Amino acid sequence: MDIKTYKKDLFYSYTLGTFPTIEMLKNHSNDALKVYIHSSFKNKEIINLINQFRNQCEVEFNDKMINKLSQKENCFVVGIFRKYQSKLDNDHHIVLVNPSNMGNLGTIIRSSLGFNIKNIAIIKPGVDYFDPKVIRASMGAIFSCNICYFSTFEEYIKAFPNHQIYTFMLQSKHTLQTINFEQNKNCSLVFGNESSGLDDNFLKYDSIIIEHSKKIDSLNLPSSVAISLYEFRKQVK
Amino acid sequence: MDIKTYKKDLFYSYTLGTFPTIEMLKNHSNDALKVYIHSSFKNKEIINLINQFRNQCEVEFNDKMINKLSQKENCFVVGIFRKYQSKLDNDHHIVLVNPSNMGNLGTIIRSSLGFNIKNIAIIKPGVDYFDPKVIRASMGAIFSCNICYFSTFEEYIKAFPNHQIYTFMLQSKHTLQTINFEQNKNCSLVFGNESSGLDDNFLKYDSIIIEHSKKIDSLNLPSSVAISLYEFRKQVK
Repeated sequence: MDIKTYKKDLFYSYTLGTFPTIEMLKNHSNDALKVYIHSSFKNKEIINLINQFRNQCEVEFNDKMINKLSQKENCFVVGIFRKYQSKLDNDHHIVLVNPSNMGNLGTIIRSSLGFNIKNIAIIKPGVDYFDPKVIRASMGAIFSCNICYFSTFEEYIKAFPNHQIYTFMLQSKHTLQTINFEQNKNCSLVFGNESSGLDDNFLKYDSIIIEHSKKIDSLNLPSSVAISLYEFRKQVK
Repeated sequence: MDIKTYKKDLFYSYTLGTFPTIEMLKNHSNDALKVYIHSSFKNKEIINLINQFRNQCEVEFNDKMINKLSQKENCFVVGIFRKYQSKLDNDHHIVLVNPSNMGNLGTIIRSSLGFNIKNIAIIKPGVDYFDPKVIRASMGAIFSCNICYFSTFEEYIKAFPNHQIYTFMLQSKHTLQTINFEQNKNCSLVFGNESSGLDDNFLKYDSIIIEHSKKIDSLNLPSSVAISLYEFRKQVK
């Protein structure tokens, strides 16, 4: 098997670094294809942990391959896995409309899992969530979440018609500081693109603004999501 | 004046992009040295705005210089400014112990200003806050804040002996979700390095953990700071 540097249309992707690789093995061992370890890597505990998965996938010391795949990053372990599909559970969701930055998406997945929301919908166009940059920023949290693309927001709504929809947007008049989240329904927290946010069509849902000083234009997207997750989980256990 | 790509020991730095450049001009026009505009840039409103500062600094169309300074970034306006020193006000502070990532520092400065905390202490070693990468991630918020280095945390404490110190750390037993912030004193919200956090010595202050699922190791630093700022400002107006 000749492993190429990542492209969206490949059937596999890879984890850069020990932490994401172990999360991949623990949560998706059936999809694991191979683990490469750098010959200078001497952490026995982690090598033993990886070796426990030798039944599911090959483990190989291969510096050349690590250097090729990790490019500029300083990295000693790389895990190759078959991309898989997941379905969203009927539970609370994070919905990202047209996310465009891979690091941001990874950070959001990490926060989301941190506040026990394991289901993330991405409305297209949006970045490729299996890109190694997303996986790395997620610190491997991606392997404990269900992530699913939808062509339009309407398609998402059709699939989950009973969800209570909250849209986070600067145009809203209702502040997160004063909102009471619905306690008895599954909720969807919806966020727009990094530059353009959500358009006025989303005002018809329960819209929310995170009140902030006029000295800044907006908070950055992963920070907004993190704050919203925090407040949501304070109210909804 | 021959402008070089940024290095820490240069007496100047620069803003990449219109938004940070305008923030620099508005808040630090005395330190502005030059603004370069790309010949393909046609936004008259912004060009007019920049031209209002012609008394303070030269404005020049210079594609070569923009390409040189912006490197890979897609950018049409660059502002050169003289680095300046600032002093922290006797007000609430964010304190970052050994921050190591430029993008994170910029994002934290942006959130901090968003929640009206304009004073940021950095305990050395820490990244260079005048690096163009920090300025860009801050979206220019850096020019509305006071940022100051301290050699040690003890030096910081000596300078602000009456501040109520809150240290955010995974080792704490007191959750942000239940804490009552001091209402009648200036507060310092203290955060550790991205990888190593704060060591146990910081437990002697009022320590706080942002409760999160065990599925993740920790929240990312800018997300933790954003959540803490949000809760702090909910309580302390």
